[in-house]
Amino acid sequence: MDLFITMLGTAASVPTAARGTSATLIARGGRRLLIDCGEGTQRQLLRSGLGLVDVDAILLTHLHGDHYLGLPGLLKTYSLRGRERPLPIVGPRGLGDLLGRLRPVIGRTPFAVEVVHTDGGTVWEDQAVVVEAFPTRHSVASVGYALVEDARPGAFDVATARALGVPEGPLFGVLQRGGEVELPGGGRVRPDQVLGPARAGRRAVVAGDTEPCDTTAAVARGASVLVHEASFQNEESARARDTHHSTAAEAGALARRAGVGLLVLTHLSPRCAPRELRREAEAEFPRVHVPRDFDQIEIPFPERGEPLVHRTRDGRVARADRAGAEAAATVVTHDL
Amino acid sequence: MDLFITMLGTAASVPTAARGTSATLIARGGRRLLIDCGEGTQRQLLRSGLGLVDVDAILLTHLHGDHYLGLPGLLKTYSLRGRERPLPIVGPRGLGDLLGRLRPVIGRTPFAVEVVHTDGGTVWEDQAVVVEAFPTRHSVASVGYALVEDARPGAFDVATARALGVPEGPLFGVLQRGGEVELPGGGRVRPDQVLGPARAGRRAVVAGDTEPCDTTAAVARGASVLVHEASFQNEESARARDTHHSTAAEAGALARRAGVGLLVLTHLSPRCAPRELRREAEAEFPRVHVPRDFDQIEIPFPERGEPLVHRTRDGRVARADRAGAEAAATVVTHDL
Repeated sequence: MDLFITMLGTAASVPTAARGTSATLIARGGRRLLIDCGEGTQRQLLRSGLGLVDVDAILLTHLHGDHYLGLPGLLKTYSLRGRERPLPIVGPRGLGDLLGRLRPVIGRTPFAVEVVHTDGGTVWEDQAVVVEAFPTRHSVASVGYALVEDARPGAFDVATARALGVPEGPLFGVLQRGGEVELPGGGRVRPDQVLGPARAGRRAVVAGDTEPCDTTAAVARGASVLVHEASFQNEESARARDTHHSTAAEAGALARRAGVGLLVLTHLSPRCAPRELRREAEAEFPRVHVPRDFDQIEIPFPERGEPLVHRTRDGRVARADRAGAEAAATVVTHDL
Repeated sequence: MDLFITMLGTAASVPTAARGTSATLIARGGRRLLIDCGEGTQRQLLRSGLGLVDVDAILLTHLHGDHYLGLPGLLKTYSLRGRERPLPIVGPRGLGDLLGRLRPVIGRTPFAVEVVHTDGGTVWEDQAVVVEAFPTRHSVASVGYALVEDARPGAFDVATARALGVPEGPLFGVLQRGGEVELPGGGRVRPDQVLGPARAGRRAVVAGDTEPCDTTAAVARGASVLVHEASFQNEESARARDTHHSTAAEAGALARRAGVGLLVLTHLSPRCAPRELRREAEAEFPRVHVPRDFDQIEIPFPERGEPLVHRTRDGRVARADRAGAEAAATVVTHDL
């Protein structure tokens, strides 16, 4: 099942010509979760090539304007399009008050807006996947979000199944899904006889605005991708602490502790050159990507390889090709 | 003095990948007036190449979200930048209530926000120019705005001035500005002896969302540029009436009645191909421009020629060159 993270807005606090304010889309199969919704997010969706998709839920990391000012416009547009499916909006305490204040601006919506307050815990569930909120450390109440897939059954050993007398056909599928089968000629085969060890699901973490914190490291342990803010460089580390943000190096150190597959930096200030942020993060951790808006990170199942970065230009996504991977890089970047 | 209109957002109701929601910047000399402020306007300014300029006033044509949802973000960004100069925000009744509701979202601003309600009349003045609001006809209280320059003194006739014994130097300037002078050798020269007839100032009109209405035609009489909405094509004229909008043909007919220099269509729906809108408007009036976002319309003094359209790509403005004008066109379009 495909799993993509699309960086819809990577600017810190205020937009630039090249970067919108915070918004990240996680798409798994047909499900789409929008994490944060800075001003202009509806248009970033359109520009990304994904289109203005009906997201399944909106998850806010905290209630600063650069993370939610795109909500009224997005909700109004959904209204104009006649969306009827309820829209859960998850966020820290205060979210209900905020949406109440915005309600006269948003107007009536033909769909229900379901406000979900969280300071941690399961906030969304789908087939074999959950999203867990976890507390982070910012200047206001804040959470990060981790998408966590269930472990999958182990690889199916066809040769052994045949040797045990299982006929090819529906019984293969029952065993693959973890069921026990009765053979046509009598006798039973248990799934552990034909399945390898359970395989890890995927895990992707979007931390939001936060100081480096232990909880993030714990939740991101073994994640394929950690999207972490890097609002400052080393030379402004004191300011990072004052404002409850992180430096690129701190994000790198945290990614190293957590042993993630790929660190994606976001909440980028125009004061910091991307290459400098990358350099400082890479001093701590080797697998760093400093995205442009609309970059997509594809997360394959762990046994299929490392995350791939698909770079974009003018909203057209170039699907990265593993064969085109740069030597010795776990990050594949393709420019159109 | 330079006078430019920059089309920052030309989409109707909802943005598209190529078009932001409503926003138009009028820049005259160093003064900048923002008419409407749809979601993402601050970023459109950045992308336009103008930069996130400190506008002198914001003029709202009406209080629909696609015309004001960019206000909170823009005001927050001005706050972050430490703007101190008061910011007048002009609009129809209800504006004060709206800004009151948005205040908790906007937060404290280090500059005063001066709310000015209008249903018509002078709303802004500067040296030799005023902006007049005028009532339009939409589904909610609505106004358009006309920038109107004072008439300028006539052309200075150097030969006559010399013949009358005026020495070259400061006395030339006094006469040019309309003053009477005493000659060094005695005698007086009146300005009407050396100045041609007064020359018209420029006039630019942005009508906002509206049905075609007589007031717009009256105010736009003789304007260099009329920016008028064209939300629908002929085939949907009934819907235009129901929703209190205009068709491209109606905008064209109105431009013909008013005798404007150039009609610029805006509030464009993705349902209508720009070439079709242009064709339908041109059936009524020959000088029509259907802009892309970031197009700039330069308005020279009337005796210097017709308005020029500078087209842009990726936010880089190509200054149109009169020498490059397309044959028989009063609209000069240059693609980079």
